[in-house]
Amino acid sequence: MPPRSTLVQQKLDQAVEILREQDVDLWLTFVRETSLTSDPSVGLIAGVYSAWQGAFLVSATGERIAIVGRFDAPSVEQIGAYEVIGYDESIRPALRDTVERLAPRTIALNYSESDPAADGLTHGLWRVLQDTFADTYADRFVPSEAIVNALRGRKSPDEVERIRSATRETEEIFDAVTPALRPDLSEVEIAGIMHAEIERRGLGYAWERDHCPAVNAGPEKEVGHSPPGELRTRSGELLHVDFGVSRDDYCSDLQRVWYFPDHGETDAPEDVRRAWDALWASVDAGVAVLRPGVAGWEVDAAARESLVAAGYPEPMYALGHQLGRSAHDGGTVLAPRWDRYGAAPYGVVEARNVFTLEYGTAVPGRGYIGLEEDVLVTDDGIEWLSTPQRELWLVR
Amino acid sequence: MPPRSTLVQQKLDQAVEILREQDVDLWLTFVRETSLTSDPSVGLIAGVYSAWQGAFLVSATGERIAIVGRFDAPSVEQIGAYEVIGYDESIRPALRDTVERLAPRTIALNYSESDPAADGLTHGLWRVLQDTFADTYADRFVPSEAIVNALRGRKSPDEVERIRSATRETEEIFDAVTPALRPDLSEVEIAGIMHAEIERRGLGYAWERDHCPAVNAGPEKEVGHSPPGELRTRSGELLHVDFGVSRDDYCSDLQRVWYFPDHGETDAPEDVRRAWDALWASVDAGVAVLRPGVAGWEVDAAARESLVAAGYPEPMYALGHQLGRSAHDGGTVLAPRWDRYGAAPYGVVEARNVFTLEYGTAVPGRGYIGLEEDVLVTDDGIEWLSTPQRELWLVR
Repeated sequence: MPPRSTLVQQKLDQAVEILREQDVDLWLTFVRETSLTSDPSVGLIAGVYSAWQGAFLVSATGERIAIVGRFDAPSVEQIGAYEVIGYDESIRPALRDTVERLAPRTIALNYSESDPAADGLTHGLWRVLQDTFADTYADRFVPSEAIVNALRGRKSPDEVERIRSATRETEEIFDAVTPALRPDLSEVEIAGIMHAEIERRGLGYAWERDHCPAVNAGPEKEVGHSPPGELRTRSGELLHVDFGVSRDDYCSDLQRVWYFPDHGETDAPEDVRRAWDALWASVDAGVAVLRPGVAGWEVDAAARESLVAAGYPEPMYALGHQLGRSAHDGGTVLAPRWDRYGAAPYGVVEARNVFTLEYGTAVPGRGYIGLEEDVLVTDDGIEWLSTPQRELWLVR
Repeated sequence: MPPRSTLVQQKLDQAVEILREQDVDLWLTFVRETSLTSDPSVGLIAGVYSAWQGAFLVSATGERIAIVGRFDAPSVEQIGAYEVIGYDESIRPALRDTVERLAPRTIALNYSESDPAADGLTHGLWRVLQDTFADTYADRFVPSEAIVNALRGRKSPDEVERIRSATRETEEIFDAVTPALRPDLSEVEIAGIMHAEIERRGLGYAWERDHCPAVNAGPEKEVGHSPPGELRTRSGELLHVDFGVSRDDYCSDLQRVWYFPDHGETDAPEDVRRAWDALWASVDAGVAVLRPGVAGWEVDAAARESLVAAGYPEPMYALGHQLGRSAHDGGTVLAPRWDRYGAAPYGVVEARNVFTLEYGTAVPGRGYIGLEEDVLVTDDGIEWLSTPQRELWLVR
């Protein structure tokens, strides 16, 4: 595994290619106090903290310039990827001079209406830039979302390897949980087993620890981004877990489902098996159309139509999102064309994108079934990064 | 220590008072995918994750309404502080209806040019709001920075108690480090001792672990927000550490300095002691004017003038920043009126603000001396939350 600084270098090289491809002269990521409000690109293209206002510039001519506070400069210099300009009283003189020297036709700025991963510029900082470049470059600002989408979305082989490792660790943790399961365990107890595993392995959490894993036992749970509670596993009911880890800065995101057979049952009951099969059929319908060039919403629509045609409620969420440094990694989503997704479902799938595929449904009186696998888009289809859970797991 | 949800309730009650005091009808904190780009107020007024667009509204009439995605709703409901409206396809209808029902004269929105802690609204989300309220309320948006400054800055007794506990833990860790010190320890080794202590105690890091602590051994180190390296402690030189922990969501931030006497030395040499005394005299000059009603820059100026008058270089940073949920907690800073601080040095100090007081200087051939203590502003002055390091620590 190459060190973090090598990954930063690789992604910066890739960024220059993307700028040329998109015919953009300059990409400016403008940030401040990145432990309070960070731009998600900072991890990708720098991996350092910036306390004062910081400007990370990448030009189509290949220049990489970081203008950062004096105290932030040493760690940016250590990356070895930037010409670093340290400032004391104000970032503006060096920032103006640098932009004027590069004389870009347009400046792509780190904001986006639809894509949270490309929307790190705060409105206050946007106003600072408007003021700094009033009468000069302020009318040349455009959103950098297409650059960020491409850069984040087109995973390098090293990035895919990291996601694969995170996925493997997650599967090993699921494998360690299964033998510990029995009826009458609480959601909190199950989460505790998984937290102990994650900490023993020195891994990070793919999202906030309080609901990583999300554990849903039985039919009473309102499934969502909420913490495990005091509900307990019971015979004749389902257990659903949504879980991911972070390893070497990259995440996994998987859901797994167990059924607790009742006395005399040798398999899950008909209602559970029917829902399981319908969900897999819908995911497979999505997989059948998932390839480079297709719009995100088209993949979702194929899966959605399949599930609804089988008589199940329409899921009120997307079939899949991208996965990378974050569990929700932005860019194109495999989602319906609903207002809350903005332009993201209209984005086009590209080779080397990594997506989750996840649909679920509540089985009345049993609990929740949610499938979620992680896949890599190849030149003509997909490769599973996870080992798909094709069969419901029975807790004997 | 009351639970997190009680603290959220307390701060929301306080927010209503502040809205009335500032004659603002409605405060809207608008966020999205808060594990990618979070508003620092979310921890204070909700403490939950919001995957989809989320609107947290507080009105001067005392209403607290959260409009969040269906999957985010259960955890917001658990706080017990909000009327929760869950949505599926779009946040806009419920958001428009709610604002129209409240019919505010102005809507304070979560952005600020000067204050990172009050600047969580991304520019993309600002554009979404402009579009959502075009022709209705878009011309009534004002920045909520004054509300956030007051709410974050005026610590409740519970918040002060948390900071006090974090400070105490930090001092205990420093006390555990001192006996382990000797010449020829690397910065990385010293950080390792402190990381082990922080983990043994189950504490969090006040800032990014890679430079928490920042460890600076001897005169060759370029002091900044950079990781410990392979420089080593040496006799006749200084060791400087900048360190903070997070406990129960609140931070400490302290600097401590050790001197390694050379053969035959019974005390630090004259150049070191003179710098130490000059730094303390300057901090005390700041303390002498630090009380409610004074502008941040006035406190810095008193300290700054003292240090420069003693013949030392002017520090290229602020005397102090606020401390709370974050090590750099935003709002008024005790800083010079430099462009990079924007309006923050012009802010007025209030009772129950918690500040760091930190000045430093490099002693040629010896290393870096940096003082940093944490203080609470009282009705007529300050109370030390840390035990001030009035004497340089000698490593025998």
